[in-house]
Amino acid sequence: MDKRLQIVLGTRIKALRAETGLSQEKFANKIEMDRTYLASIESGYRNVSLHNLKKIADGFGLTLSELFDGVE
Amino acid sequence: MDKRLQIVLGTRIKALRAETGLSQEKFANKIEMDRTYLASIESGYRNVSLHNLKKIADGFGLTLSELFDGVE
Repeated sequence: MDKRLQIVLGTRIKALRAETGLSQEKFANKIEMDRTYLASIESGYRNVSLHNLKKIADGFGLTLSELFDGVE
Repeated sequence: MDKRLQIVLGTRIKALRAETGLSQEKFANKIEMDRTYLASIESGYRNVSLHNLKKIADGFGLTLSELFDGVE
């Protein structure tokens, strides 16, 4: 399992959330995701699924392609 | 669960694979994925995970962002 990719994605999501000024709790509520799960995604601990990726992208008003911009 | 997104992604993957001219079996072998699992992804039955998305993108020589181009 490629932890590096999970960390790169988590860091991207954390940075995007910081731009919104929302706390982890507020963003998690906004996208109807458990806060601790969002925290584990941002920390790079999760092999995130398509539907959760879509929830996150929608929460930022981004397409999935935009969410993955630079995530390699 | 948003089946529509799974179907849009599966259709995209199937089209990209068709462009390579590889059979499902050959592409599945190339990316070290079980053929029946690839078949279920292409049919829209799977909530695909980050690592499998990365395997597929790598198999096409695409970035994850490029793989998701138009997938909404």
